[in-house]
Amino acid sequence: MKVLILGGDGYLGWPTAMSFSQIGHEVCVVDNFSKRKIELENGIEPLLPIAPLHKRINTWNKNQNNKINIEIGSLMNHRFVYGICERYKPEVIIHYAEQPSAPYSMKGREEAVYTQENNIVGNINLLFAIKSFCPDAHLIKLGTMGVYGTPNIDIEEGFIDIVHNGRKDKLPFPKQPLSFYHLSKSIDSQNIEFVCKTWQIRSTDLNQGVVYGLKTQETELHKDFNTSFHYDSIFGTVINRFLTLAATGNDMLVYGEGNHKRTFLNLLDTIQCVKIASENPPNKGEYRVFNQFTEVFSIMELAELVKIQTKKKGISASIKKIINPRVEKSNHYFNPKNENFLKLGLKPRKISEVILNEMIDKIIANKDNVNKEIIFPEIKWKK
Amino acid sequence: MKVLILGGDGYLGWPTAMSFSQIGHEVCVVDNFSKRKIELENGIEPLLPIAPLHKRINTWNKNQNNKINIEIGSLMNHRFVYGICERYKPEVIIHYAEQPSAPYSMKGREEAVYTQENNIVGNINLLFAIKSFCPDAHLIKLGTMGVYGTPNIDIEEGFIDIVHNGRKDKLPFPKQPLSFYHLSKSIDSQNIEFVCKTWQIRSTDLNQGVVYGLKTQETELHKDFNTSFHYDSIFGTVINRFLTLAATGNDMLVYGEGNHKRTFLNLLDTIQCVKIASENPPNKGEYRVFNQFTEVFSIMELAELVKIQTKKKGISASIKKIINPRVEKSNHYFNPKNENFLKLGLKPRKISEVILNEMIDKIIANKDNVNKEIIFPEIKWKK
Repeated sequence: MKVLILGGDGYLGWPTAMSFSQIGHEVCVVDNFSKRKIELENGIEPLLPIAPLHKRINTWNKNQNNKINIEIGSLMNHRFVYGICERYKPEVIIHYAEQPSAPYSMKGREEAVYTQENNIVGNINLLFAIKSFCPDAHLIKLGTMGVYGTPNIDIEEGFIDIVHNGRKDKLPFPKQPLSFYHLSKSIDSQNIEFVCKTWQIRSTDLNQGVVYGLKTQETELHKDFNTSFHYDSIFGTVINRFLTLAATGNDMLVYGEGNHKRTFLNLLDTIQCVKIASENPPNKGEYRVFNQFTEVFSIMELAELVKIQTKKKGISASIKKIINPRVEKSNHYFNPKNENFLKLGLKPRKISEVILNEMIDKIIANKDNVNKEIIFPEIKWKK
Repeated sequence: MKVLILGGDGYLGWPTAMSFSQIGHEVCVVDNFSKRKIELENGIEPLLPIAPLHKRINTWNKNQNNKINIEIGSLMNHRFVYGICERYKPEVIIHYAEQPSAPYSMKGREEAVYTQENNIVGNINLLFAIKSFCPDAHLIKLGTMGVYGTPNIDIEEGFIDIVHNGRKDKLPFPKQPLSFYHLSKSIDSQNIEFVCKTWQIRSTDLNQGVVYGLKTQETELHKDFNTSFHYDSIFGTVINRFLTLAATGNDMLVYGEGNHKRTFLNLLDTIQCVKIASENPPNKGEYRVFNQFTEVFSIMELAELVKIQTKKKGISASIKKIINPRVEKSNHYFNPKNENFLKLGLKPRKISEVILNEMIDKIIANKDNVNKEIIFPEIKWKK
């Protein structure tokens, strides 16, 4: 299949691109390095050195039979997006190309506006490009479980059957996003749902949990294939942060009491899910939502898990509770569903000693790269 | 009270500004003439000549005891918004300052992006200005009943009690907006709800029905006080369009079968509702939603009503069904609630012979201004 990977330079985009190329798809990676720029502006580096995208792809193309294409530009430039859709006529478009950090979006007005403008307008430009140049393409859009917030009822996958005053309907699941970033994802989803209905576009909207992991089959083939694993307070996801802190003898910083729960999945399962979605496209005009995660933990459960595992390796890690920089419920019901992917054959990799050990070993091997200055969460949700 | 009227040059904004000034509030009108520019770009004029805003306000200030202030600029310019909130320290902010046309937002990519960018970013800039310079101000935000779409259950006011798998919660009412414009309003609401919760802002979000009418007590005081009544296919609301077409011997264009239902209210009741909201502010941190309308009709019922009324005046008006340029359900359940305003004392003005006659007379008196070229809906929801 002809596959566009938008945001293909990122933590998830790059491993996805390699994996799709490896199994024989015709892959084109698109990126504008927006995240690398935000990293520079905030003095942040990923744990492992990341080669420039051109170099990653040159190395890939020298060593692999199936080549990856590259296009540099922003979805904010509609002519760029139109041009790519017109030339490539993609069958699948995997859209990771958005500002991905909740804390960054809460830093101030400029960051809030950048996040919503970039994510919403980029997505609209893409929808118009699909309509004009590849109306049969399957748009696989990465969203977040964070759009649901923490309602006191079970979280369904995108839609819910509501019975009200004796009548019923299947309606979009009510969203309660808790940052300007999460709001941008909720808005993207509404725009996509609307054009599926109105223009007969087809799309799978993936509400993804918190991803952890730094290895895939392909990242291990060459040092240029590393993915951008973050442990900082802006881009670092919680398991990645805890493992890095614990493995390097720093306190694991738990926000608040740590009773709030989140959904999780391994980087390898992000790729597995996106593949499953691409192999099972929706009908024309169909908009469907899959919740993309494999496990649920509270933050404190995770910290304890990491503590036990590092202790077995002779490292004494400690947990430190700090004031939660976010505004969120500390105790809440949380029962999200993820049956859609399981029905389509997802084989979840649960967090295991093996996985944690692998990650700890790789972090320890690179521990000299860890910069303590970028760990503490300086960005607060309230002024 | 110190009241900012954002979008105070518009169809609703200007009459609101005069009315609030008349009853003694300290009013500042803010506008950037975005709608007047779109009118020019599309060759559209309102039925009655509209003086420049400065002239309207000069005439007002010469003839009235209570003066109106004026500030020209765009909410997209955050420094402008910050400056106004810092200098005026408003107690109430009535926010009409958004691109208000669904058809315009569906014209093409540029218009879709303009609508969402302008409405969403302008609103975010305002929220940051409130947070920094007038955190106790009451934000009264104009939205639309169109955000709900046409669900098969009763439409509540912003929130709904959902019982699901034996548990329950009060959650945001699921939205199904049917244009990029309606989507922009849904998004604004989510951003506002979020900052109310996170920053302890207070806001009343008004989901307004389709407004009709062209007279208020103040518009009749001077020709410079006319409000911008539209009968064209971009800015004209349906009752205003039907009355203008019928009164000038043109066919009333009904989109599709005309069975789809809408909510309606008189321009005078827009002002009444906004006043009631301003006199009954929410608590700090409270986000509340009021559905703002007084009646429900199908489009065909309205056309029949106008036909009967014009016939009584000796004008023979006819109804012409055309292909619906929008994508929407032609037959649907529709039972929206509007109890919040009724509980606070709203006295609805229902559509009456008197009101229709007044409007028909004023339209006939200005019938030479009617331009037939701008009546037919050229903008289609589908390509």
